[in-house]
Amino acid sequence: MRFDGRTKNELRPIHIETNYLKHPEGSVLITVGDTKVICAASIEDRVPPFMRGQGKGWITAEYSMLPRATNQRTIRESSKGKITGRTMEIQRLIGRALRAIVDLDALGEKTIWIDCDVIQADGGTRTASITGAFVAMAIAVNKLHEDKKIAAFPIKNFLAATSVGKLEQHGIVLDLNYVEDSAALVDMNVIMTRSGEFVELQGTGEEATFSMVELQELLASAQEGLNELFEAQKAALGKIADKIPNMEGGK
Amino acid sequence: MRFDGRTKNELRPIHIETNYLKHPEGSVLITVGDTKVICAASIEDRVPPFMRGQGKGWITAEYSMLPRATNQRTIRESSKGKITGRTMEIQRLIGRALRAIVDLDALGEKTIWIDCDVIQADGGTRTASITGAFVAMAIAVNKLHEDKKIAAFPIKNFLAATSVGKLEQHGIVLDLNYVEDSAALVDMNVIMTRSGEFVELQGTGEEATFSMVELQELLASAQEGLNELFEAQKAALGKIADKIPNMEGGK
Amino acid sequence: MRFDGRTKNELRPIHIETNYLKHPEGSVLITVGDTKVICAASIEDRVPPFMRGQGKGWITAEYSMLPRATNQRTIRESSKGKITGRTMEIQRLIGRALRAIVDLDALGEKTIWIDCDVIQADGGTRTASITGAFVAMAIAVNKLHEDKKIAAFPIKNFLAATSVGKLEQHGIVLDLNYVEDSAALVDMNVIMTRSGEFVELQGTGEEATFSMVELQELLASAQEGLNELFEAQKAALGKIADKIPNMEGGK
Amino acid sequence: MRFDGRTKNELRPIHIETNYLKHPEGSVLITVGDTKVICAASIEDRVPPFMRGQGKGWITAEYSMLPRATNQRTIRESSKGKITGRTMEIQRLIGRALRAIVDLDALGEKTIWIDCDVIQADGGTRTASITGAFVAMAIAVNKLHEDKKIAAFPIKNFLAATSVGKLEQHGIVLDLNYVEDSAALVDMNVIMTRSGEFVELQGTGEEATFSMVELQELLASAQEGLNELFEAQKAALGKIADKIPNMEGGK
Amino acid sequence: MRFDGRTKNELRPIHIETNYLKHPEGSVLITVGDTKVICAASIEDRVPPFMRGQGKGWITAEYSMLPRATNQRTIRESSKGKITGRTMEIQRLIGRALRAIVDLDALGEKTIWIDCDVIQADGGTRTASITGAFVAMAIAVNKLHEDKKIAAFPIKNFLAATSVGKLEQHGIVLDLNYVEDSAALVDMNVIMTRSGEFVELQGTGEEATFSMVELQELLASAQEGLNELFEAQKAALGKIADKIPNMEGGK
Amino acid sequence: MRFDGRTKNELRPIHIETNYLKHPEGSVLITVGDTKVICAASIEDRVPPFMRGQGKGWITAEYSMLPRATNQRTIRESSKGKITGRTMEIQRLIGRALRAIVDLDALGEKTIWIDCDVIQADGGTRTASITGAFVAMAIAVNKLHEDKKIAAFPIKNFLAATSVGKLEQHGIVLDLNYVEDSAALVDMNVIMTRSGEFVELQGTGEEATFSMVELQELLASAQEGLNELFEAQKAALGKIADKIPNMEGGK
Repeated sequence: MRFDGRTKNELRPIHIETNYLKHPEGSVLITVGDTKVICAASIEDRVPPFMRGQGKGWITAEYSMLPRATNQRTIRESSKGKITGRTMEIQRLIGRALRAIVDLDALGEKTIWIDCDVIQADGGTRTASITGAFVAMAIAVNKLHEDKKIAAFPIKNFLAATSVGKLEQHGIVLDLNYVEDSAALVDMNVIMTRSGEFVELQGTGEEATFSMVELQELLASAQEGLNELFEAQKAALGKIADKIPNMEGGK
Repeated sequence: MRFDGRTKNELRPIHIETNYLKHPEGSVLITVGDTKVICAASIEDRVPPFMRGQGKGWITAEYSMLPRATNQRTIRESSKGKITGRTMEIQRLIGRALRAIVDLDALGEKTIWIDCDVIQADGGTRTASITGAFVAMAIAVNKLHEDKKIAAFPIKNFLAATSVGKLEQHGIVLDLNYVEDSAALVDMNVIMTRSGEFVELQGTGEEATFSMVELQELLASAQEGLNELFEAQKAALGKIADKIPNMEGGK
Repeated sequence: MRFDGRTKNELRPIHIETNYLKHPEGSVLITVGDTKVICAASIEDRVPPFMRGQGKGWITAEYSMLPRATNQRTIRESSKGKITGRTMEIQRLIGRALRAIVDLDALGEKTIWIDCDVIQADGGTRTASITGAFVAMAIAVNKLHEDKKIAAFPIKNFLAATSVGKLEQHGIVLDLNYVEDSAALVDMNVIMTRSGEFVELQGTGEEATFSMVELQELLASAQEGLNELFEAQKAALGKIADKIPNMEGGK
Repeated sequence: MRFDGRTKNELRPIHIETNYLKHPEGSVLITVGDTKVICAASIEDRVPPFMRGQGKGWITAEYSMLPRATNQRTIRESSKGKITGRTMEIQRLIGRALRAIVDLDALGEKTIWIDCDVIQADGGTRTASITGAFVAMAIAVNKLHEDKKIAAFPIKNFLAATSVGKLEQHGIVLDLNYVEDSAALVDMNVIMTRSGEFVELQGTGEEATFSMVELQELLASAQEGLNELFEAQKAALGKIADKIPNMEGGK
Repeated sequence: MRFDGRTKNELRPIHIETNYLKHPEGSVLITVGDTKVICAASIEDRVPPFMRGQGKGWITAEYSMLPRATNQRTIRESSKGKITGRTMEIQRLIGRALRAIVDLDALGEKTIWIDCDVIQADGGTRTASITGAFVAMAIAVNKLHEDKKIAAFPIKNFLAATSVGKLEQHGIVLDLNYVEDSAALVDMNVIMTRSGEFVELQGTGEEATFSMVELQELLASAQEGLNELFEAQKAALGKIADKIPNMEGGK
Repeated sequence: MRFDGRTKNELRPIHIETNYLKHPEGSVLITVGDTKVICAASIEDRVPPFMRGQGKGWITAEYSMLPRATNQRTIRESSKGKITGRTMEIQRLIGRALRAIVDLDALGEKTIWIDCDVIQADGGTRTASITGAFVAMAIAVNKLHEDKKIAAFPIKNFLAATSVGKLEQHGIVLDLNYVEDSAALVDMNVIMTRSGEFVELQGTGEEATFSMVELQELLASAQEGLNELFEAQKAALGKIADKIPNMEGGK
């Protein structure tokens, strides 16, 4: 039994509230245990300079935490005048992951801006951001589709993310909260499509290492959590979910 | 009748949800119409260098907007690497206003950090921030008081803020939303104590001016709104409100 | 009798030296007691991006202090790599105030850059800046008018600024110098047109508050000082002053 | 047969020149095909503030490219005034990986600074940096050990890194050069100890995904390359290599 | 005859107004033709970190131009958030030159801050800054000496600077104004002591070169101008000048 | 006899390795004693904004040091987020010097980017950079010429640089290494063409001065060193050297 009463392969409670904000084309408040992230998707009718003239779209993400999302107040990056390496890594990861399951040609020369703002943090903020951002993006893209601004629905697959890790005391566990994350020997983020393909796999030994056998175990645990997250996304999206291919056979 | 059906001296609906966040010593989600601000108050056990050794406390504020709090996505200040003049003005204003009604000697060498993060913006974000920050601060200060970390309750008075303005079409109106604010000839923020003293008065002609008679009318309208805001604060604070002096006679 | 021998409603000696610099279209050295500010007005034949294509002009201001304008040397903002909140507030205020009394349509797509550089500081640098900047701007605009680059003289009214405050010892006083300003309980800047309309009113309790009665008294004192400042501006401008409407009836 | 004549599981030629620079405690020039990186290890006799007083050491890395390391000249990060997200990710990765195989307690309150400067880039700069940095660090640490500044030799294992990827045309390949890297569907960096434990695993679908079967194949290919890299490191280190545990049984 | 009526070896009119500012320990307004610079010298009772504990003083300089010192308005360095290369070069030059003629040991652990702010620019701002800064510094140092804060008067020699150049039309000329400076083939700044020793010599071909013979001619012309500048400094300093060694025999 | 066994007018050993890098149009590794600099020349088919439409080319330089080029590790300028004054001075100097011997009209609207990256520093990095950059530039320009992208070979003269100085112990010496440079009373950089014309002359007294006689001696010593450097450049360039005018008669 874990610190907060969960079993080893048990996710924290998930809730996805859609259309949380008034202004963005798509938005959700995703809650994973005590971690809460507002994800907003905005459509811009042009692409960044390096993409122009190719007829393809682009997806980019920004990630931030409120100063008191954390237990100790953190200094705002706007006050420091620069973004930390951690923030950069996370926002690059979110953008890259979402681009893997969108047909950018079908999107046309548009940019989807994803904003993930962590309101409250208790571990797993980057994986919650990706899981929530997928839903916000699907809502925004659906608006484009309903307004006939794009011909084909460009999302090719569901995408969700979770963390797994290795703890001194419990071995391999799913969906680490902050206390577990701080103590983990190995920390792994798994981003997958609903058809079971990896989009991104990032495993890190924290002053430690992991074996091939442990890798297999970590991935199996992640797969269990991801299946549950896909169900939550599907429920949150309602009818929009039907536009996303039923991806038994993979990409 | 105004754009959104309100009369000239009518506030938008107010809601103050206390203890909105898990980590900060005090926090609220304040809703004024469609404007939503998360206000958090954090206590730090030291003061900035320029205050050290005086035995007095300090209150400082930071203000920010989520990129999609607004109708058009705004660029994050952390991405730009600097804070805009507007943000600086607002956060200086919030800090200064709160310091006016706190006995900093009674607080001792502590800093209260106020974070006002606008989740959704529809006009009046700075006044909503002040009104909400007061409540978050009172909750945080009460925690100090209950934990016997301060001897006397240092908040001397209630503090709230609202905006008034002059519109081409409706004349003097209370609590401008975004559409009204954009069109206003005169825009005034009034920050007052419950005993009817001014803490800050900022009236600005936007490529326009205002007369002494209009000033009187603006102030009278603001007073009506502020009375309602003090009631909302009192309700939100419950028993804590009783620790704040019953300020019939002013400072 | 005040610290420097003045009565409560007495301004410090004013001097406005026009065409102080060789290069700018308009310039003055304004002296208010020991406060000295060089104000320069420059005309640029285009407007900032957000104003383009509207056929309207724009006025923007920058404010700075020499490091040894002050008693203790202050660090240059260029060395720090960023502008302080105080500087931002002041330069936004100067620009906004001047825009209120200029017919931007009559100016056409031109920008007037106002530079206020404080050579020596002894309180009231922002109000001296506005009072001096008005004169520098009028000289520059007159050059445009004489060169037939604009058809109508676009300045609609005189504009001046002064400070008033509340001191523990003397009550309400006019035109605070540095020593008084540092000790003031209430500090108020009043920016007015010669026809008696407010352009900006900023009253701040410094860890203090002020009542409605005190507000009236502060405004009456400011009005006395402003009348004297308008006379000094008129004298400095000579014949140019005649182009500015005789504004008995206000805007 | 690949673009440059290599078979699928063939590394590019490796060369490690030790003591390449005169000043640093440890340094190498590592060459992997046309990729050349100068790695320097410097010892500082203190740790960063967040580590002080724990009696433990720290390892931190910086990574940079000369502007003409690349085919098109890249703008210097010092000219831009900020470090790109890619650079941040890489330098965090290098530091984290090295920390995993060093006994930081045995190091004591010292910081090892690793500088990886890419002189010429042709793909795989981050993995070459890690492989080279390990050798530079071992030389520097050996100097400490020989000078009796540390009692026990703190490096617990060899560490090397390589990349594997999936190409449209050739399937899974080892050690991608720039042309291959640009075209890869999947890109994976594998950082391992000589005893076969993972330190870091980063697999990314570039607008693509990869299956569990492909993951196995990628890891097998990486293992082949890493074995060869460990031999090159051992040869470069000469006698110093004998101080590093013969790690058949893993950590 | 030159553009402005001067002969080849003629300086522009010089004026040095001492004690121009109220607050600094030493200050002058130096006028060289239409070039006007406010030079202020401030004493700080400590030295920068790299100098501490040596018992020696330090002299450092900052240089800036008002935006409308120039014919076209220049952007403030504080707005750009960084100092240009030109500014850096000049302020390093001023500091270095002054340090060459001060006995830093006799000064003790004090820093002299020199601020040179160009109010109006017409060529030769850096040489006017040095010539003026010398006088401001001597006044400030004299204050220390009179207040018995230093035992010996630490200034060992007079120091002045001028420019010489080579023009297409006039050959070698002294003290170039802006129009001449812009057209010069060769531009040389000469900083000398009154005893005829060089402190700094900077000659630059502007897309041109100069011969050894021309170098001799440039230096002879500079010497003439410098003699006149030393007289102006001596006159401005009055009795303080007597404390500076009569340096017929050089250092 | 000097510290490292050289006579007073003896250069350190020079080596210039051409085409050191794979990607740039021209590159060298220049070695002057223990000072090693990679110089790369890149051609860009446009000029900076301030040069556009004049049909002329431009040459600009950037200079940097690896953190461990020096004895004590220096902080990267990219980490500090700004370039030091020293770096700015040096890169401005390199660009200016090269522009003096290139016919920018013959180059046409192209920019030559010079990158000088110091791999190892032991004094004289700026003069080694100029000497090496000249060779890298000539190789790059020759490529343009061979590819018929320019009609005439635009380099008008050889250009090299060296340092001379005055030491307490040895008097005037040539080509100072780091130990000598740190102790020098006078430090002078001389940049000359092969025909004996000065391009730049920068002599600095380091808390010291120098006489006219010493200047002559410094220049004579520099001339000796430069002659040797021109031979090294000529040898390194091989046939390309023949395209540069035989400049007995100067410019």
